[in-house]
Amino acid sequence: MERFERLKLTVAYDGRPFSGWQSQPNRNGIQDHMKLAFAEILGRPVILHGAGRTDAGVHAFAQVAHVDVPYGKYALRTWTAALNAHLPSEIRVLNCTRAREGFHAQYSAVGKVYTYRIWNHPIHHPLEIGRSWHVAHPLDLDAFLAARTLLVGTHDFASFAANRGVAEETTRTIYYIQIKRGRELLTLEFAANGFLYRMVRMLTGSMAKVASGRKPVDWIDQLLAEPGKQKANTTAPPQGLYLLKVFY
Amino acid sequence: MERFERLKLTVAYDGRPFSGWQSQPNRNGIQDHMKLAFAEILGRPVILHGAGRTDAGVHAFAQVAHVDVPYGKYALRTWTAALNAHLPSEIRVLNCTRAREGFHAQYSAVGKVYTYRIWNHPIHHPLEIGRSWHVAHPLDLDAFLAARTLLVGTHDFASFAANRGVAEETTRTIYYIQIKRGRELLTLEFAANGFLYRMVRMLTGSMAKVASGRKPVDWIDQLLAEPGKQKANTTAPPQGLYLLKVFY
Repeated sequence: MERFERLKLTVAYDGRPFSGWQSQPNRNGIQDHMKLAFAEILGRPVILHGAGRTDAGVHAFAQVAHVDVPYGKYALRTWTAALNAHLPSEIRVLNCTRAREGFHAQYSAVGKVYTYRIWNHPIHHPLEIGRSWHVAHPLDLDAFLAARTLLVGTHDFASFAANRGVAEETTRTIYYIQIKRGRELLTLEFAANGFLYRMVRMLTGSMAKVASGRKPVDWIDQLLAEPGKQKANTTAPPQGLYLLKVFY
Repeated sequence: MERFERLKLTVAYDGRPFSGWQSQPNRNGIQDHMKLAFAEILGRPVILHGAGRTDAGVHAFAQVAHVDVPYGKYALRTWTAALNAHLPSEIRVLNCTRAREGFHAQYSAVGKVYTYRIWNHPIHHPLEIGRSWHVAHPLDLDAFLAARTLLVGTHDFASFAANRGVAEETTRTIYYIQIKRGRELLTLEFAANGFLYRMVRMLTGSMAKVASGRKPVDWIDQLLAEPGKQKANTTAPPQGLYLLKVFY
């Protein structure tokens, strides 16, 4: 019987050239490129799981994936180098370790951190194209902070999730939302035990709506009080979003 | 007789899609795009001068240009908006003011600041492609600092200039070279009363050669001592270079 070992990969990517993390019929998912790199190296297909899907255009500093490969085939450093030699330059394996017994990139995850970048200035900076959401009108920082206070903690976030046709538990705990305001750049960092589908983008879109004065902060309260009855219905674009860290 | 006014424009760009600042036969110079935007707005060609040429792939946070337009045609804010409506999104006019009498973007400049970014890690980060020079081997910070000490001040920098077939004075004063080292990112900031053709890239390439251990720091001294006799002959790639500021 063939022995396998499970690798844990830390992967960074620029989301722009790809159709999101998940395998796609067009084979341009980041997962497709990863699987192809393994298949080229091993001469046979592999099953590869990511910590979570990221949409097309969303970036990652440290997505995590696991994969089973024949035991002892290569040293861990060799795996990193070999994978990077087969991957497009916009996807890089930053680190490769041997996973502990029973490790699963998705199911073992106990928390995630995402960053969302907003360029808040009448003119979008050329070096920010594809890397931030351009909001030309002023955003009120106090309104952001007020919305943040309501969102942090354990809530049913059904109103802040896009439907993807799967019934799932919609309660999550947001540990913190850190808000940093520079001259033009507004950075939101979200840490939670997990996020629903498009939740970070819907949270960001909703907070920005309040900070634009188009909704009162009470609206956030209503969305939380009656989960899923009304949807936030405002989703910040993918290019401002970065998967920063997965905790295990 | 028609009256004109001189506009001073502050322009940011991502250098990647263009053939450098200067007008080109392929019309893909940033200057070409700027001139085209004016021609479309005014219905006739303009003469437009930049503070200095940047090579293909070099970025700008604040290139400066001047242009003469019919007096009082538009308010300054309208110029900014109209130009940005006609320019590719990778070029943005950030600011438009009325230039003082006799102002010339190139000849009135008394100083410039450039930044050069080096990603010093075995793996180039996907979000750094086209935005930094990837140097995979270790660079010694002390050697960088020693080279810096030799370069700052007034010197004949002929050994650190690419020939472009024009005889020019090659003495310049470097006010400072600030070196910041993060975990992977090494940032060099150069301020001088002016730079020769490709000088920042040749200074960076030379300092990196010393920091790689491929040349002793004395080599910098020799290049300075016998200007132009020997060329530094090592030019850091354009994508790490950013024009940060022009002083008048």
